[in-house]
Amino acid sequence: MDAAALWHRYRDWLYYDAGLRIYLDISRMQFDAAFVQQMTPRFEKAFKDMAALEQGAIANPDEDRMVGHYWLRDPDLAPTPELRQSIIDTLVDIEQFASQIRTSVIYPPGQERFTDILSIGIGGSALGPQFVAQALGPDFPPLAIHFIDNTDPEGIDRILARLDDRLSTTIVLVISKSGGTPETRNGMIEVRTRFEQKGLHFPRQAVAITGVDSKLDVLAKQEGWLATFPMHDWVGGRTSELSAVGLLPAALQGIDIRSILGGAKAMDALTRVPRLRDNPAALLALAWYHAGNGKGEKDMVILPYKDSLLLFSRYLQQLVMESLGKEKDLDGNVVYQGIAVYGNKGSTDQHAYVQQLREGVPSFFVTFIEVLKDRDGKSPDVESDVTAGDYLFGLLQGTRRALFEKDRESITITIPEVSAHMVGALIAFYERAVGLYASLVNVNAYHQPGVEAGKKAAASVLELQRQVVRTLQQADRPLSLEELAAQTQHSDDIEIIYTLLRHLHANQRGVTIQGDPGSPLDLTVTAP
Amino acid sequence: MDAAALWHRYRDWLYYDAGLRIYLDISRMQFDAAFVQQMTPRFEKAFKDMAALEQGAIANPDEDRMVGHYWLRDPDLAPTPELRQSIIDTLVDIEQFASQIRTSVIYPPGQERFTDILSIGIGGSALGPQFVAQALGPDFPPLAIHFIDNTDPEGIDRILARLDDRLSTTIVLVISKSGGTPETRNGMIEVRTRFEQKGLHFPRQAVAITGVDSKLDVLAKQEGWLATFPMHDWVGGRTSELSAVGLLPAALQGIDIRSILGGAKAMDALTRVPRLRDNPAALLALAWYHAGNGKGEKDMVILPYKDSLLLFSRYLQQLVMESLGKEKDLDGNVVYQGIAVYGNKGSTDQHAYVQQLREGVPSFFVTFIEVLKDRDGKSPDVESDVTAGDYLFGLLQGTRRALFEKDRESITITIPEVSAHMVGALIAFYERAVGLYASLVNVNAYHQPGVEAGKKAAASVLELQRQVVRTLQQADRPLSLEELAAQTQHSDDIEIIYTLLRHLHANQRGVTIQGDPGSPLDLTVTAP
Repeated sequence: MDAAALWHRYRDWLYYDAGLRIYLDISRMQFDAAFVQQMTPRFEKAFKDMAALEQGAIANPDEDRMVGHYWLRDPDLAPTPELRQSIIDTLVDIEQFASQIRTSVIYPPGQERFTDILSIGIGGSALGPQFVAQALGPDFPPLAIHFIDNTDPEGIDRILARLDDRLSTTIVLVISKSGGTPETRNGMIEVRTRFEQKGLHFPRQAVAITGVDSKLDVLAKQEGWLATFPMHDWVGGRTSELSAVGLLPAALQGIDIRSILGGAKAMDALTRVPRLRDNPAALLALAWYHAGNGKGEKDMVILPYKDSLLLFSRYLQQLVMESLGKEKDLDGNVVYQGIAVYGNKGSTDQHAYVQQLREGVPSFFVTFIEVLKDRDGKSPDVESDVTAGDYLFGLLQGTRRALFEKDRESITITIPEVSAHMVGALIAFYERAVGLYASLVNVNAYHQPGVEAGKKAAASVLELQRQVVRTLQQADRPLSLEELAAQTQHSDDIEIIYTLLRHLHANQRGVTIQGDPGSPLDLTVTAP
Repeated sequence: MDAAALWHRYRDWLYYDAGLRIYLDISRMQFDAAFVQQMTPRFEKAFKDMAALEQGAIANPDEDRMVGHYWLRDPDLAPTPELRQSIIDTLVDIEQFASQIRTSVIYPPGQERFTDILSIGIGGSALGPQFVAQALGPDFPPLAIHFIDNTDPEGIDRILARLDDRLSTTIVLVISKSGGTPETRNGMIEVRTRFEQKGLHFPRQAVAITGVDSKLDVLAKQEGWLATFPMHDWVGGRTSELSAVGLLPAALQGIDIRSILGGAKAMDALTRVPRLRDNPAALLALAWYHAGNGKGEKDMVILPYKDSLLLFSRYLQQLVMESLGKEKDLDGNVVYQGIAVYGNKGSTDQHAYVQQLREGVPSFFVTFIEVLKDRDGKSPDVESDVTAGDYLFGLLQGTRRALFEKDRESITITIPEVSAHMVGALIAFYERAVGLYASLVNVNAYHQPGVEAGKKAAASVLELQRQVVRTLQQADRPLSLEELAAQTQHSDDIEIIYTLLRHLHANQRGVTIQGDPGSPLDLTVTAP
């Protein structure tokens, strides 16, 4: 395609909305008119599916649940007046509570004001708040936020060591929809233990964000925590950033949550339009489908050219991969769907792996995210008439061009600035694109049946650990692995027994291994 | 394969070194004996290539350079006495300088001591120091480190705002091998500008880490910076963490750099063994080759189950993708090689995308990294006889098993703890595996010819920007895009002209666009 034809294609497919001032360019995805024509009826079905979902149809049939994250930013769309009122009330509650914390109306026992937020949550209860804190957190927030998003003892120790004396002025958010997520429960127990060691009263500094009547909800109410906020059962974890999960931590940091919601609502309206060429989320889904042949054959590399958007790709890993990565389609056929997502930020990543993107295995398509505004105020020149921001721009355009020369495809999203409004819009943009793409490939975007398997397997490992330790404690002599496996009636799990013993031995848990650890059959084990 | 056979396979392939106390398990990669036999002669060649490289052969033929990062941790291997002495001297210089900074023998003008480090560098000059700071930085380091690793004005503003008054006690490291990396140069100019605004004297707080006689080296010497440290031309950016690039920032943070070097040296010795089954890096390369059919057909998902190793996958993205992502092999054949790398940490990522890994598109293999030591000191129980660390262990083993049930392959690396010694060993482990794999697939692991294309394209975009602005300034009426393109004799670049005008317009750079930005042909532009 010559330059004139490419310029024509660029203009022909360029999407721009004057309200949000957002651009979408899919001209560097090499689909043709026949592909678009072939996809058009599929999009008609996808638009119908989406409309039904927004109106409260059971869109998550496995779990018999409605899918309502779109209502969070436009409560008038909620299918019942009760749901509508509940969304509005929760938002007001969040704003009031956050304001009371920020203005010291609510304060920690014996202290003037809260200084820090410690958010305990994982997956959908961490990735959105982390992304938003990085993107929108002010340089000097009224409360500084910290995250425990795992069950790593050393990671927890590091966070608590750094909080140190400020633990007494830290508000702790415990975020778990089910109220039973093990990592989050563990983090909470560890933090409570530290509170007790320091003579602090945990409930007076704790807030629960959880499903109504969950175990966590009941505990918080029994103990009289500072507050509880609901996670509605019609909001999935990976689409919960615009519920209390994301809005409360944002409001506590002084981020304008009404603007986030407003940006999402505006984007929802744009992406509700049931015409492919007038709907940017549909255009995005079209490009994804083309890139990966509707089977995820290409990875989605996300490259925002803005430091504050560094965590967007981690946020999208969950949104895209957990929504689309499915073994079976809605008709029960085995399809192994999904799209792998990775990336950090440009131009930094150019120095890490653009070498492979340009010359190596062509297993990906890139999404460039351009932010027009460089900064508040004027920039110094770094060369004659060129600023650092011009370089960032030039490196994006240069890389886009250099990739295209080598037949590497890309999408470019251009936004005016990284504001609360735009972050809300970006979240809504990808939520809708994922929903539409799921319809195109006929999978349920709103469940995650594969997540349970790892959890169940973990629980059985821990149960086996208890058995092994009991058996060792009752033994009157050192046992070999084979003896241990036989005595616990877990001969098929001898490898797990070996690895759990290594772990216990390394942590002074009353288990001692004798012998060469590289020769499992020669080891003997005692629990004196 | 039944449980007994799998246990046999596990033991048969288990690698353990009693010195480093590191385990490697590749039993969940489904290669067979025939594959191993077929690969054995290739490994013999790879071991010979590697031996020649370590002895100073020109291993980077494009750039006519030796490849000497292995000498950094064992100077006795350096091919000449001068090189040997230079490595030893630089290390002593680093230790002395860092010690003088930490003990306030060297201090900033008018201040008692340095409190912060601001590291300006990108790619190989940032990823290693960031990974090591996260992995090994103490809770309360003698100097706290901050990074400018991009040319994003807002990103730079955020770092400088947070440093605020401590800029007067900040030591600035400017790290660029060529001394001409634009992002790094821009960051330096921005920081210098801020120093001047605050009445601070930049050279009295600045250190250069750069190639001898580079532009940056000359500048630093002319201006009398605090110190300069050399980047040797036989060390590539992505293998420079154990040179001054990584060692100086580590030493300033109070990290034991001799231990990092010692761990790397020990691993180098293990991975120098020219027998596949006795060499863990060769086993790793074997597993990679099998997974992707020697063509990178599968992505490498890196999942360390330890918060402090969060940035290891970003570090490996560069090491693996820039080394292996090559268009041509050493014989000039077009091969499009490489392996895509992504991942963050377990168990956190289980809540993000294990759904797709277990059930979705099978386009990957996982590398689990297990750390045996949970923490310093005792852990509270989170359930009867179970700790948070047991959960982390159980979730790793459970996920490994759940993936394998679905024929998803994995490698497991087990290390005793995240110590300086082990971090050095991990870096050396992957450096060697990448070098061996490159031999197997016959590519040059030590150049990066594709990186230049994006840079050159960026430079031409910036040159075009200057021309466009000049043309606008000389025009006596508003111009359309087509007129501008014609007058600058860049009709083929009209799309770039459109996008650069959008960027200038958004940043009050004296360019004004009139019209609907979504209809490029209807726009007019002025520079009054």
